[in-house]
Amino acid sequence: MSQRIKIKALLESGKTDIDVTVKGWVRAFRQNRFIALNDGSTNSNLQIVVDFENTDAVLLKRITVGAAISVNGKMAASLGQGQSVEVIATDIEVLGDSDPEKYPLQPKKHSLEFLREIAHLRFRTSTFGAIFRVRNTLSFAVHQFFQERGFVYLHTPVITQSDAEGAGEAFHVTNFDLDNVPRTDTGEVDYKQDFFGTATNLTVSGQLEGELGAMALSDIYTFGPTFRAENSNTTRHLAEFWMIEPEMAFYDLNDNMDLAEALLKYVIKYALEKNREDLEFLNQRLLDEEKTKPQAERSELSLLDKLQFCLDNNFERLTYTEAIDILKDSTPNKKKKFQYLVEGWGTDLQSEHERYLVEKHFKKPVILTDYPKDIKAFYMRQNEPDAQGRQTVRAMDILFPGIGEIVGGSQREERLERLEQRMDEMGIPKEELWWYLDTRRFGSAPHAGFGLGFERLVLFVTGMGNIRDVIPFPRFPKNAEF
Amino acid sequence: MSQRIKIKALLESGKTDIDVTVKGWVRAFRQNRFIALNDGSTNSNLQIVVDFENTDAVLLKRITVGAAISVNGKMAASLGQGQSVEVIATDIEVLGDSDPEKYPLQPKKHSLEFLREIAHLRFRTSTFGAIFRVRNTLSFAVHQFFQERGFVYLHTPVITQSDAEGAGEAFHVTNFDLDNVPRTDTGEVDYKQDFFGTATNLTVSGQLEGELGAMALSDIYTFGPTFRAENSNTTRHLAEFWMIEPEMAFYDLNDNMDLAEALLKYVIKYALEKNREDLEFLNQRLLDEEKTKPQAERSELSLLDKLQFCLDNNFERLTYTEAIDILKDSTPNKKKKFQYLVEGWGTDLQSEHERYLVEKHFKKPVILTDYPKDIKAFYMRQNEPDAQGRQTVRAMDILFPGIGEIVGGSQREERLERLEQRMDEMGIPKEELWWYLDTRRFGSAPHAGFGLGFERLVLFVTGMGNIRDVIPFPRFPKNAEF
Repeated sequence: MSQRIKIKALLESGKTDIDVTVKGWVRAFRQNRFIALNDGSTNSNLQIVVDFENTDAVLLKRITVGAAISVNGKMAASLGQGQSVEVIATDIEVLGDSDPEKYPLQPKKHSLEFLREIAHLRFRTSTFGAIFRVRNTLSFAVHQFFQERGFVYLHTPVITQSDAEGAGEAFHVTNFDLDNVPRTDTGEVDYKQDFFGTATNLTVSGQLEGELGAMALSDIYTFGPTFRAENSNTTRHLAEFWMIEPEMAFYDLNDNMDLAEALLKYVIKYALEKNREDLEFLNQRLLDEEKTKPQAERSELSLLDKLQFCLDNNFERLTYTEAIDILKDSTPNKKKKFQYLVEGWGTDLQSEHERYLVEKHFKKPVILTDYPKDIKAFYMRQNEPDAQGRQTVRAMDILFPGIGEIVGGSQREERLERLEQRMDEMGIPKEELWWYLDTRRFGSAPHAGFGLGFERLVLFVTGMGNIRDVIPFPRFPKNAEF
Repeated sequence: MSQRIKIKALLESGKTDIDVTVKGWVRAFRQNRFIALNDGSTNSNLQIVVDFENTDAVLLKRITVGAAISVNGKMAASLGQGQSVEVIATDIEVLGDSDPEKYPLQPKKHSLEFLREIAHLRFRTSTFGAIFRVRNTLSFAVHQFFQERGFVYLHTPVITQSDAEGAGEAFHVTNFDLDNVPRTDTGEVDYKQDFFGTATNLTVSGQLEGELGAMALSDIYTFGPTFRAENSNTTRHLAEFWMIEPEMAFYDLNDNMDLAEALLKYVIKYALEKNREDLEFLNQRLLDEEKTKPQAERSELSLLDKLQFCLDNNFERLTYTEAIDILKDSTPNKKKKFQYLVEGWGTDLQSEHERYLVEKHFKKPVILTDYPKDIKAFYMRQNEPDAQGRQTVRAMDILFPGIGEIVGGSQREERLERLEQRMDEMGIPKEELWWYLDTRRFGSAPHAGFGLGFERLVLFVTGMGNIRDVIPFPRFPKNAEF
């Protein structure tokens, strides 16, 4: 018996007349003769040809959808359509049966909602195999991009003391028996008795700790899980998601935008090269899905065209103030088609406004900069007021078609007095963030960074419509199954 | 002004007579003339030569340890010792001052304990710069190793419902106000009202979810944070640590051991090549530290020799039963030098026993296999009882000198009845793990996997003595600072 070879390697080699051993799961079995075998290494199934006249009937009956089998055989050019090579089986062993009466996955189209309920098995479908291979490639591409540029991957803590940024949206972490929370003499929760001797939360961002690394190592990035206890039941929010947060000393906002744009293009290009087959499958999947929609709701570009389009075009860069002017003058604003009409300067943009700018006006990714100070975080670098006295910060958001905000970042306020003043204004306790302020006390320097929501990136690249379908086991309100 | 170049690239280029701009933090300033500048890209400082006679005295006074500066100048061959090139400064700008009276880091040796208290600044020391660059390299090497082999990186959930494995060592995650935990009519904690509608914990391992991926994609790995609410104040335990958990369909225990050994050798070799300078620094650091110890307590091998030794030797593989025989006959056991004497078969090995096997008996990494069933987890594949009726499982632990267990793994029990029986015996609720059992119901297959504690790996490769020094912001009992 030869050593097992994965189907991807076998199909790529194109060799025939060699003895092979393959192992995987049966996706289909037609005419007691043709097995479609998949081992997850590729979207393509390998065709196994069974000499059913000389195969034990009991064994034949055990070759069912979902069964794990091991096959010895010889590679041969295929006479059938849909594949160039196939395996003529000499020997088949069933490693694990799959009762066709009970196996939830049948060789037919299942709804994404149904598959979400059996997320432990959905890896076995073509769609989710493709999604999670693409997700894998994107993860690695992120690392490779930063490594090529000398960035240090920093594991910032998941359990943190403060919720300086999160505005109450952080999950609590505790070792207390919730049925019997210890109290102080005065009846308050006695956090001194908790594991960490203090109240702790799940991190909402590694940025502040990331900055500590950047102010010594120059360029760092995080890539880890972050959490929001936000009661959002949408197709774009998760309670647990992965985020990439680079932080660069001596960068200004322009350097920051250049890096973010380069990163996005790099990882999309990488996936197009590495996972062409998976993306072609997902491209077709989306075309099929859109056929059921009215013409007006269909995308102008196919998935593959959309990805290529992102590579070929510079992202449009403009200020918030310029965007407001465009929106005020826009047809949907004048005809009162926006749910929230754009009337003046100062309020945050709604999803409909972002979509208009990206999908209708510029028809490409957009980077908005210099948002009003009052709608952004305390750590963003303050611009001097403009002629009308309007105050902005050196923020930037990258908006993608169909996704909205995929990156949010800023140049950071490196001036201690400005930073402290802003924290006071916003009621952020300076004593909790003494370590953050220390970087401004000792050897402060201009620096910048951003956060890239990884699942939103995967959503964009795979063309899926619901963020719950691009992470293996999604966490959202009332769901922590698996 | 030329574009800023990082010090690592500059030193590697070896060019002279070019104009450069460098930015970084002052490590030392001697004789009003020589600045040692570091930007974190390399352990080496860049020497900046200041023409102090023609430099503003106020500026000179601001060039203090810890200050961030930007320097324009010309590269020149250095006449001094300790560097081959230096920058003759034409122009220096202080980006951020550092008051020498207040800056905690001075150019002298600080204790590791002190540096742990200022973990936000310790990145700026040579030791921690080296540690975190090595940690970065090891992280990337892990990804590259698995990517080269076609593994899929899987993000398993951090927030989980069950604590099937953790035996009560899991942290609780909740959105409840701990001061006012909702109750049901019968007075119990009303988890239905919590964010996820159920009690949730921080994961202690991604293995079970990883297996779900492997039973469709063949080979997967996780690399993410895991948590233990264990009250261990040791140099080898953390409450939050990163773990790498590959899981491979169609692997038996031998394949598993081969993969683990190949992974460890690959990443060590990668770090030796990529971070030679950092490792030489850490090697010297350890030699200096050991000079203060009595001869008998010093290591036989230097750090670099120890790493090379791991590459050059096969790990010794033997069964638990064989190990017990060796330990029973060992001198420290006969002379009653072990704190826990080895008398019979069946109990777990203590750290002193593992160290004896690795450091004294075999003098190389050791893989112990086939542990008694009763001291191992429910999911490990059960061997047939031996001639004496002793029951073992297909477990394997890799033991490293100075570290102890660095990898723990097993072939998994793929037979549904055996698995269910073991869960019943151990009181593990089958209904909570219905999804895990489904992989044995539908297309089960032999498979195996292991967990590699990432910080223990970094500890080994950097030669550091305390695990709190190899993760940026360590979490342990009564500490969640930064």
